[in-house]
Amino acid sequence: MRKLGIGLIGTGFMGKSHAMAWRAAANFSGEVQPVLVCVADIDGEAARRTQQQYGFQRSTNNWQELIDDPEIDVISITSPNRFHAEQSLAAIAAGKHVHCEKPLAPDSQTAERMVLAAKAAGVVTQVGFNYVKNPLLKLAQKMIAEGDLGDITGFRGIHAEDFMANPEIPWSWRLDPSGGAGAVADLGSHILGMARFLLGPISSLFADLETVIKTRPESAGAANTKAVEVDDIARLTVKFARGCSGHVEANWVASGHKMQLGFEITGSKGALIFNQERFNELQYFQFNQHEATNGFKTLVAGPEHYPYALFCPAPGHQLGFNDLKTIEMLEFIQSINEGKSFGPDFTEAYEIQKLVDAAVASSREKSWITI
Amino acid sequence: MRKLGIGLIGTGFMGKSHAMAWRAAANFSGEVQPVLVCVADIDGEAARRTQQQYGFQRSTNNWQELIDDPEIDVISITSPNRFHAEQSLAAIAAGKHVHCEKPLAPDSQTAERMVLAAKAAGVVTQVGFNYVKNPLLKLAQKMIAEGDLGDITGFRGIHAEDFMANPEIPWSWRLDPSGGAGAVADLGSHILGMARFLLGPISSLFADLETVIKTRPESAGAANTKAVEVDDIARLTVKFARGCSGHVEANWVASGHKMQLGFEITGSKGALIFNQERFNELQYFQFNQHEATNGFKTLVAGPEHYPYALFCPAPGHQLGFNDLKTIEMLEFIQSINEGKSFGPDFTEAYEIQKLVDAAVASSREKSWITI
Amino acid sequence: MRKLGIGLIGTGFMGKSHAMAWRAAANFSGEVQPVLVCVADIDGEAARRTQQQYGFQRSTNNWQELIDDPEIDVISITSPNRFHAEQSLAAIAAGKHVHCEKPLAPDSQTAERMVLAAKAAGVVTQVGFNYVKNPLLKLAQKMIAEGDLGDITGFRGIHAEDFMANPEIPWSWRLDPSGGAGAVADLGSHILGMARFLLGPISSLFADLETVIKTRPESAGAANTKAVEVDDIARLTVKFARGCSGHVEANWVASGHKMQLGFEITGSKGALIFNQERFNELQYFQFNQHEATNGFKTLVAGPEHYPYALFCPAPGHQLGFNDLKTIEMLEFIQSINEGKSFGPDFTEAYEIQKLVDAAVASSREKSWITI
Amino acid sequence: MRKLGIGLIGTGFMGKSHAMAWRAAANFSGEVQPVLVCVADIDGEAARRTQQQYGFQRSTNNWQELIDDPEIDVISITSPNRFHAEQSLAAIAAGKHVHCEKPLAPDSQTAERMVLAAKAAGVVTQVGFNYVKNPLLKLAQKMIAEGDLGDITGFRGIHAEDFMANPEIPWSWRLDPSGGAGAVADLGSHILGMARFLLGPISSLFADLETVIKTRPESAGAANTKAVEVDDIARLTVKFARGCSGHVEANWVASGHKMQLGFEITGSKGALIFNQERFNELQYFQFNQHEATNGFKTLVAGPEHYPYALFCPAPGHQLGFNDLKTIEMLEFIQSINEGKSFGPDFTEAYEIQKLVDAAVASSREKSWITI
Repeated sequence: MRKLGIGLIGTGFMGKSHAMAWRAAANFSGEVQPVLVCVADIDGEAARRTQQQYGFQRSTNNWQELIDDPEIDVISITSPNRFHAEQSLAAIAAGKHVHCEKPLAPDSQTAERMVLAAKAAGVVTQVGFNYVKNPLLKLAQKMIAEGDLGDITGFRGIHAEDFMANPEIPWSWRLDPSGGAGAVADLGSHILGMARFLLGPISSLFADLETVIKTRPESAGAANTKAVEVDDIARLTVKFARGCSGHVEANWVASGHKMQLGFEITGSKGALIFNQERFNELQYFQFNQHEATNGFKTLVAGPEHYPYALFCPAPGHQLGFNDLKTIEMLEFIQSINEGKSFGPDFTEAYEIQKLVDAAVASSREKSWITI
Repeated sequence: MRKLGIGLIGTGFMGKSHAMAWRAAANFSGEVQPVLVCVADIDGEAARRTQQQYGFQRSTNNWQELIDDPEIDVISITSPNRFHAEQSLAAIAAGKHVHCEKPLAPDSQTAERMVLAAKAAGVVTQVGFNYVKNPLLKLAQKMIAEGDLGDITGFRGIHAEDFMANPEIPWSWRLDPSGGAGAVADLGSHILGMARFLLGPISSLFADLETVIKTRPESAGAANTKAVEVDDIARLTVKFARGCSGHVEANWVASGHKMQLGFEITGSKGALIFNQERFNELQYFQFNQHEATNGFKTLVAGPEHYPYALFCPAPGHQLGFNDLKTIEMLEFIQSINEGKSFGPDFTEAYEIQKLVDAAVASSREKSWITI
Repeated sequence: MRKLGIGLIGTGFMGKSHAMAWRAAANFSGEVQPVLVCVADIDGEAARRTQQQYGFQRSTNNWQELIDDPEIDVISITSPNRFHAEQSLAAIAAGKHVHCEKPLAPDSQTAERMVLAAKAAGVVTQVGFNYVKNPLLKLAQKMIAEGDLGDITGFRGIHAEDFMANPEIPWSWRLDPSGGAGAVADLGSHILGMARFLLGPISSLFADLETVIKTRPESAGAANTKAVEVDDIARLTVKFARGCSGHVEANWVASGHKMQLGFEITGSKGALIFNQERFNELQYFQFNQHEATNGFKTLVAGPEHYPYALFCPAPGHQLGFNDLKTIEMLEFIQSINEGKSFGPDFTEAYEIQKLVDAAVASSREKSWITI
Repeated sequence: MRKLGIGLIGTGFMGKSHAMAWRAAANFSGEVQPVLVCVADIDGEAARRTQQQYGFQRSTNNWQELIDDPEIDVISITSPNRFHAEQSLAAIAAGKHVHCEKPLAPDSQTAERMVLAAKAAGVVTQVGFNYVKNPLLKLAQKMIAEGDLGDITGFRGIHAEDFMANPEIPWSWRLDPSGGAGAVADLGSHILGMARFLLGPISSLFADLETVIKTRPESAGAANTKAVEVDDIARLTVKFARGCSGHVEANWVASGHKMQLGFEITGSKGALIFNQERFNELQYFQFNQHEATNGFKTLVAGPEHYPYALFCPAPGHQLGFNDLKTIEMLEFIQSINEGKSFGPDFTEAYEIQKLVDAAVASSREKSWITI
């Protein structure tokens, strides 16, 4: 057995999720076993609590310690977005593999620097686009690649949630205008990444970004308000390099929706419909000769959809969100082991970031942007 | 009882549908009873068959006879699209009320002439946007108007079917490029009309029109092909005069979909989701204080949703497509009776036509168009 | 064209439904055209209103007049249940064809007498089990008969609504204990009829009948209450002559359900799921070799499902409840024309009545009853 | 931190599931940390593989070693059913806490002995009825207990899968007639347990057990067949001590269904519908005064539904099957810690076993059985 030392930065939603996923990935990673070496958080107390809860060997309030720690092979970055680039670059410079939560960087120039640095250092990278780790999306990707849908004729994608719908939700780092993007970066990156995962590169796009709630309280309950400069909703029209087109929406004020990350893909031979709200199901339509019995079929995730069987040998039992995160970590371990990316890596995140940047530019310029 | 003489032009899908709807509307139209006087079709034999099947008093292969017939008060136009303007104008000139299937005209200039002619003649008009006659859409309209959703924050609409998905489907009048529009006119007009019905005027739009199947057989089974110049898919970004925005798609190559005419509307207080594929249901989300029991509620059409009760006093029994058409005719009779439009009338169809024209122009010019 | 004179008894929910259906059936009945001759209701004013609304030639407050009317060929009976037998027998005796709403009779002995009388008189009969007229149920019946499901291994059926769930709903004819049955007769007859339509005869059953709301107001708002003696819920275990078994529930206090008339049928090769709440859809599962793409397929009613095409040539447009009733009347006209039943006729209603009687007896005796 | 030594017997589906769940439970169990001490399997190689995969300290091919191991506090039993009683009793005798997969015992007499032994020894027990650990079922239980549904008026429950639908599936321990029960024990116990969890004790029942596939190959692909004596389908009518009744079905030949473990519960004020096929959703109907906006609401699991928040702070992300198992282990640790059962424990399993036994007896005797 070979140990893979993990250093985690950040102890929030994603920090906890990484800790759980690294532990669970050990169930399936065979010879290479991840070891939770150290967790860092600027709030040392939070770091200590996370250490204890998830069994890290150490904790610190200084993330630099992880970079300098020879027992750590992988840095898992879940800190606030504005630290992602600095921490990633430091880890790469120290020769460590890096798993970084999205967004990789505030803009594509920075992302590109990170890609180049990782390549130069020969380290393996991954970015937290966990939803594409779904066994049914692997199936969808395969079906499309093998021609089950025929020529692809259209795409409609969305990532909509409602966690910002209430105008009383205060100003926060999510609304920081330095990157120029709000929902399109936070949620749009997921659906754009999914679109690329399934259909390949997007070659041009037109976007309209809209700030629905123009001001928000400076902090929870505050009387003072602060102007919001980033988008609550982004509406894109995209053209894929393969020749088809589509609509994409990113929306964090979509009342009633908690996880409407979905798509419809149509082709000359059939169609697929997916919604993360029921992510253990995939709708599949196939033209056949018997019109009386045509229709969308609901495929249910099961052991024949890799890597569902790792978790359960019986169909219909369902994976959960944390299982997707576990698959992500497992495949990152395999990436490190085999020295090749199972994706999405920094390069992929850079490509997605270019789309986000293009959306901001297109909306400002009111014109198509070629990527 | 007062008789209302009906003259029908056309005996295809919509011709038959009108015949059935006029007969069924008689069940609810009280003192004013429609009478099927005469049906016209250039194919006199088809006209005769329709006469016999639906109980018209006469038939003819010359639609001018209807115009000249003093027993006919209403001309119901279901002929091929290119005749709509000429026949409507002739009927108006003869002082007859006109129900015309969509599209009203090949372009908005012609549509405007028809509106002005009808106003000058003092006749009542209606255009066949039947889907908005759904009792649950009347409920949706009322809920929005009364503020149940709060401020409207977004719209996503689609009308997608797959009847043109097969490349072997031959060239036809649907593909006639003289109007410049394909799916956006045929299907887009329905969803744009529905958007206007619910949220009011659209003030500007950006569109991308795409011809997916570039050539089609000249006729069924023919070896010769003919280039397709109109859109198979139209993707619009729209801004409503009330301040919100949205995406709209029209698509007649949407494999697997037979009647995906639907929308999601979000507001600060809630949301509505509708899909014509299950048009006796409306999904309603309402933020409430008890987060543990929040969620989308499925409203099922029943007698409390006017005018469902005309058809059935018990909830959940469901209306069918022809019932929507019956409501359309019934409300047209009421329009004639009360001398005011219950909509959608020629004026509304003109507004919709302007949107279709704007979509064609926007796609060509690759820029936003103000309506 | 040959005229078929219709006499209608009753002007309530079903009376109106029959009137509409007879009129609409004329659209498709070809040479034999139904003519609405006379409508009878003990409330002569109601009869007159119905006459005017639906275009009957005459009305009366004395149903006997219909029996004696030589212009009337068919008696359509929608009066309160307790009159069904008397009126049917009178009509038969006068040589008229009879369409009678369910239940045919308060007990199977009476039903049997009616069957024998109709046979002796050589008249054609039909009973209003309208739900089986659904094109998708005809498809289901055909699929089962042709072996698409393989050997049938199980049935689960229900007809549940909530119109009696409120304890304040007063005592009414529905609760009359003379027939011994409540929900099992009113709703159970539909699902038992549907079970027979799809799978053939039921050979034995065990039942448990339950009165959930023990007393109800004597009339709306009354302080006095009256004991309820019939079942609000009936739970049956049934064995089919073909060898499979199943559960059946009838329930009129099923809070939240307006029309949960549905079934699941499983076989060695596949399965079908249906629910009247979405009656334009049928779920079809078929085992195939590719486990990764197995799943339930949603079939959507379309013109390839006879007789949908009569109403609309395009799939996915949906039939409504009144269209099912129209098919019922149309097939009754065909029955009369061809002198053979398209079902469900009095014989079928008698078989269903025997099942209802058996359920009451089984529940009382707490034992299996052989039919 | 206090260590809780775990000894696992069995390395199949449930063995692996327990191993993963114990590891994951450590994320949330605070001061009391489970430690994977030893895994036993009669196939020593399988035990060793499981040891390595999930990080047990030791492995053995002799389960008695676990019983004798002073470092082990808890025995987790996932061996074939026929060993459950012997192993549980041995563990209890050694003063160890016992988590045993269902079924607890082949009959209720044996189960009762196990209950008494555990009580006498003062050890804590749990049985693997994992599905009730679902946060939304805890919500359902609470809603019912607090009267949100009013008086309960009916229950309909099912556990149907299709893993035995293919007649080529060979004879196996599942079909061992010594317990007298097939699907009713294997699947029926889950839905009966769920019924008890939500509505309390069942006081009497009537059952019909059916063997659909009468013979099966002795082993995979064998020409020789062996008679099947246990039920493929069990259909129960049950009466709850609280006064309501219901239907229950257990079925392992239900073609197309992978995990149809669900129920409908109706009450005077509302209703709940649940299906394990979409176990992160719960349908809730509530009568309200506004009939136009009544309907079933889809509640989506989120952090306000304990203990969802342990796994994820954001709603709609979904738990998976293994998360339910983790909750089960977590609550067992809490049971041990607090010295009181969080259920379902041996006593509960005994009560469920009595229902299974009663079903077998009722079917044989064709009569109601009082529990």
